[in-house]
Amino acid sequence: MIDCGEGSQLQFRQTGLNYNRIGDIFISHLHGDHCFGLLGMISTMGLLGRNAPLRIHARPELKELMQPQLDYFCRDLPYQVEFVSFDPDSQALVYEDRSLEVYCFPLKHRVKSVGFLFREKPRQRHIIKEMIDFYGIPLKEIPAIKEGADFVDAGGRLIPNRRLTRAPKAPLSYAFCSDTAYDENIIQFIKGVNLLYHEATFGDDLEELAEVTMHSTAAQAAQIAQKAGVGQLVIGHYSARYTNEDILLQQARAFFPNTELADEGKRFDVAALTENKK
Amino acid sequence: MIDCGEGSQLQFRQTGLNYNRIGDIFISHLHGDHCFGLLGMISTMGLLGRNAPLRIHARPELKELMQPQLDYFCRDLPYQVEFVSFDPDSQALVYEDRSLEVYCFPLKHRVKSVGFLFREKPRQRHIIKEMIDFYGIPLKEIPAIKEGADFVDAGGRLIPNRRLTRAPKAPLSYAFCSDTAYDENIIQFIKGVNLLYHEATFGDDLEELAEVTMHSTAAQAAQIAQKAGVGQLVIGHYSARYTNEDILLQQARAFFPNTELADEGKRFDVAALTENKK
Repeated sequence: MIDCGEGSQLQFRQTGLNYNRIGDIFISHLHGDHCFGLLGMISTMGLLGRNAPLRIHARPELKELMQPQLDYFCRDLPYQVEFVSFDPDSQALVYEDRSLEVYCFPLKHRVKSVGFLFREKPRQRHIIKEMIDFYGIPLKEIPAIKEGADFVDAGGRLIPNRRLTRAPKAPLSYAFCSDTAYDENIIQFIKGVNLLYHEATFGDDLEELAEVTMHSTAAQAAQIAQKAGVGQLVIGHYSARYTNEDILLQQARAFFPNTELADEGKRFDVAALTENKK
Repeated sequence: MIDCGEGSQLQFRQTGLNYNRIGDIFISHLHGDHCFGLLGMISTMGLLGRNAPLRIHARPELKELMQPQLDYFCRDLPYQVEFVSFDPDSQALVYEDRSLEVYCFPLKHRVKSVGFLFREKPRQRHIIKEMIDFYGIPLKEIPAIKEGADFVDAGGRLIPNRRLTRAPKAPLSYAFCSDTAYDENIIQFIKGVNLLYHEATFGDDLEELAEVTMHSTAAQAAQIAQKAGVGQLVIGHYSARYTNEDILLQQARAFFPNTELADEGKRFDVAALTENKK
């Protein structure tokens, strides 16, 4: 889960997802609309009997601010809350498991703010079963072949890997650019991701206000998407003054046609995106 | 405003009331569902440009817990947040203005919890205009007459106050009993109020659980209302296991017929209650 504003637990419940599927929460920056929902979320998970630990990834100040509250309000929590700190000024690997890596990278905002890049690890090649029998490949050779090795058969003949395996699905990637001014430094961190979320607080009419408040316009978000060569752009974090966000969508699409509007409860399927592309 | 759980600002906005009408927030006890919404509420009031001070009435620990968060997240607040502490173990006047007094009084819960009594001050009697002319009452006598004094006219004749004035409307009163076990000690503090809110977390089926968790059943809330001789009872704070709260309403009405269910956004008019009674 990325960020946790007030009321996140209500929204989360409405999605019908299971709380226990959240193992890690990544906090982009310490403004209230990105973290005031944590304490309630943590409490509710406790009331629901969670016992798996929960990791909260954020700059170190969050732990200092929240620990006294956790100690007071969540004394009897049946699970552990662990704060994992990162330096918001540099790119770093903040999470890793068997199949996924998460990086943080610096954005440009009034307070230190980071984006997050979610990148699947490359999968192994798929071995073609028929080839195992055909070339008499011993079981112990298979892991190396899945990693891309060629095979030398009993007669000393070299069988190139591409005859034995099929390419795996390309790893998927998603980048989340939280509150930020227009900043081309971001491009290096998000180059070529399948899906990019980028804030678009304002429209062209308020470009100056975007500069002062260190937010982006929809057109600026789209220019970042275009320059980073991403697959699809989702914009969000609209100022409440835009009662109809279509104007923001139009302004973004002028620079990057494959743009969509984020909305509460709306889902974007990164895998489906890449399938449509084929 | 009494208590401020997570999402209170959303609910508040939905009522269409003006944030600036809130001058004081009274916090009954420090459980998350009664105070996790404060920080967001305070922030939002700041974003909306509030400049009138906001007073938060609570036991002293709340200030200790919240001040570091306010200092960090609400540095640039355009108004002052003032914590006014009370001792949750005894009855005390916590607020007073020209027309209203608010008292806290101890409840019985797992953590120290208080109820609040809102009581209008007695109004002055209404002077009957015609009598001013008829008896030639000088202006300087009028304040005393409004307070109930008789009048002696130029001829030395005593005119009793009841000939000169009409009774004012009776002062209204409302008591809010937050999380509490059944506790007859409460009765002395809420005797005869026009409207009583009393928590009713459970039904008769879970009376034992009510005892363990130090909450009340609907029937217990109604017995308190009946013994305190209140005008109307509103119950709330239902456990989520009751998808239909009518069973709680029935159980309460068996002891105190004039009971209603609290619900999000539902309004109860204390003045209308007393008018209906006439």
